Amino acid sequence: MPNHEDHYRGKRVLITGGAGFVGSNLARRLVGLGAEVLVVDSLIDDYGGNLFNLDGVTDRVRVNIADVRDQHGMNFLVRGQDIIFNLAGQVSHIDSMRDPQTDLDINCRAQLSLLEACRRNNPEVKVVYASTTQIYGKASALPVTETMDRHPIDVNGINTLAGEEYHTVYSNVYGMRAGSIRLTRTYGPRMLVKHNRQTALGWFIRLALDGDQIQVFDGTQQRDYTYIDDVVEAFLLAGASEAVNGQVFNLGGTQPVALLELIDTLTKVAGSGGYTVVPFPEERLRIDIGDFYTDYSLITATLGWRPTIGLPEGLQRTVDFYRKYRAHYW
Amino acid sequence: MPNHEDHYRGKRVLITGGAGFVGSNLARRLVGLGAEVLVVDSLIDDYGGNLFNLDGVTDRVRVNIADVRDQHGMNFLVRGQDIIFNLAGQVSHIDSMRDPQTDLDINCRAQLSLLEACRRNNPEVKVVYASTTQIYGKASALPVTETMDRHPIDVNGINTLAGEEYHTVYSNVYGMRAGSIRLTRTYGPRMLVKHNRQTALGWFIRLALDGDQIQVFDGTQQRDYTYIDDVVEAFLLAGASEAVNGQVFNLGGTQPVALLELIDTLTKVAGSGGYTVVPFPEERLRIDIGDFYTDYSLITATLGWRPTIGLPEGLQRTVDFYRKYRAHYW
Repeated sequence: MPNHEDHYRGKRVLITGGAGFVGSNLARRLVGLGAEVLVVDSLIDDYGGNLFNLDGVTDRVRVNIADVRDQHGMNFLVRGQDIIFNLAGQVSHIDSMRDPQTDLDINCRAQLSLLEACRRNNPEVKVVYASTTQIYGKASALPVTETMDRHPIDVNGINTLAGEEYHTVYSNVYGMRAGSIRLTRTYGPRMLVKHNRQTALGWFIRLALDGDQIQVFDGTQQRDYTYIDDVVEAFLLAGASEAVNGQVFNLGGTQPVALLELIDTLTKVAGSGGYTVVPFPEERLRIDIGDFYTDYSLITATLGWRPTIGLPEGLQRTVDFYRKYRAHYW
Repeated sequence: MPNHEDHYRGKRVLITGGAGFVGSNLARRLVGLGAEVLVVDSLIDDYGGNLFNLDGVTDRVRVNIADVRDQHGMNFLVRGQDIIFNLAGQVSHIDSMRDPQTDLDINCRAQLSLLEACRRNNPEVKVVYASTTQIYGKASALPVTETMDRHPIDVNGINTLAGEEYHTVYSNVYGMRAGSIRLTRTYGPRMLVKHNRQTALGWFIRLALDGDQIQVFDGTQQRDYTYIDDVVEAFLLAGASEAVNGQVFNLGGTQPVALLELIDTLTKVAGSGGYTVVPFPEERLRIDIGDFYTDYSLITATLGWRPTIGLPEGLQRTVDFYRKYRAHYW
């Protein structure tokens, strides 16, 4: 098997959501591998896009500010690309309940537009879609495998699942080279820490670094967390493989961790902040999914991927990053 | 348990898609039960709506021509209703692949709009959504139960599944009284027979009555068929029960039938038409789901529903109807 990293040398790669957390880390890595990277990002306020995420590589990536909902723009931008990492999304579960139609526009309508644009203008392009393990809802058994029931608990989960299924159907029906990766809780440098509507962990990191108290509901919930470099590696492997077409793969963490242990590790690594455990508020308990962690053996067997960075090291790197670049993220 | 039919006397009932096949049959029955029926239908060309479907009851139902995509109209129309049978949909799988965005608008956007309209303007209303067993895709085992994997094979299946899941999530998160019924192949008087893009059976009925040859691919595929009166009964039971909130239920047929047996029965009942068996064309085989029939024991246990009309009788009634009213459907 040729090294998957060699696959990207000289390749034209489009990353939707390329100024966001995962997209920008992927873009930075691809630049190092010699790819011609085109970042498309809408830089919507309060979403994850941040041009500082591309600091240091801006002379080696092309940045095109555009919204994936702009069908005409996307029709043009997909042309000539070899690989599309399709990461643009509305990812706040809270926002999806407050404004379900915007979530639908970004996570369903724009995904259909992108796939139609590829089908008509670049049918040979490789597409890797960033889905999420949140589409499963409550785990019907642990660890969660790809064949288990998916019962999304909010509008964002429903729409992201539809976005994933469009990729599967376009692969099955039209023979497009599209597949999906279901990200579980991803953390690391360049994640959004401005507000608490996207990820709890990003917000906890901010609180810890600000020396504030983290409020934990219950705290015994087991979850898995993947460090960003491991997630980037999964995308690189998937983008270089034909075995992912029409398929979906769970990512996962090195091991399940109780929320309280996560926060304890975080505050120790940060050397600041603290936490208090409080009972679950009724309205949060209603949408909580309890313990959740994945079985990622399918992607290990298919692509050789497994998580390599444990929580203490990953959190240390993350805390170091925000200490240094705090001004650009707070 | 009070008779569920009594439940509807004097009740205000809104039926979206109420001039369509299932909607109009439901409206006719509800009128007989003493309900105040408001039919909302867009009467889009080539969809299932047909005002003749309401012939004979037009003085006892209120018909409001409106598209469920018209959010302002729906905001107003849901007010004051006791029960909404939410049946409006784009149901052609072929059309959904040719024009996926229109399918999305009707089957996702409009469903979210309707649920938001109810949440804001009539949060106590009962909603029963017409989903479809086609969301399962290929059966992972037979008969298909509600907990089995759902892998829609086209855009229509993906979007209808999302529409169903919105109803589940709005029930779970907001406490709305919404639930879904997954219809399997439904047939009977007032089904669309104008073209072959909605249902194969409707088209076969037309061909048989026209004395034409029906072309059958393979013919050994086992499927289940539900006669319209049985489907109407399921909606009446669901609309009168609190046990359906947040739940989904399969419907089914009296027994699985091979396609060839169905067509043989049809041509005998019709006394006209014939059939030829041909091999599966490659592009159709790719999206064919093979054998498919449901386990409907959950709705039997919960609501006491089971199918009562077998295929020979159901087809006879259907053929008789179209012989008599052919001019309004051809």
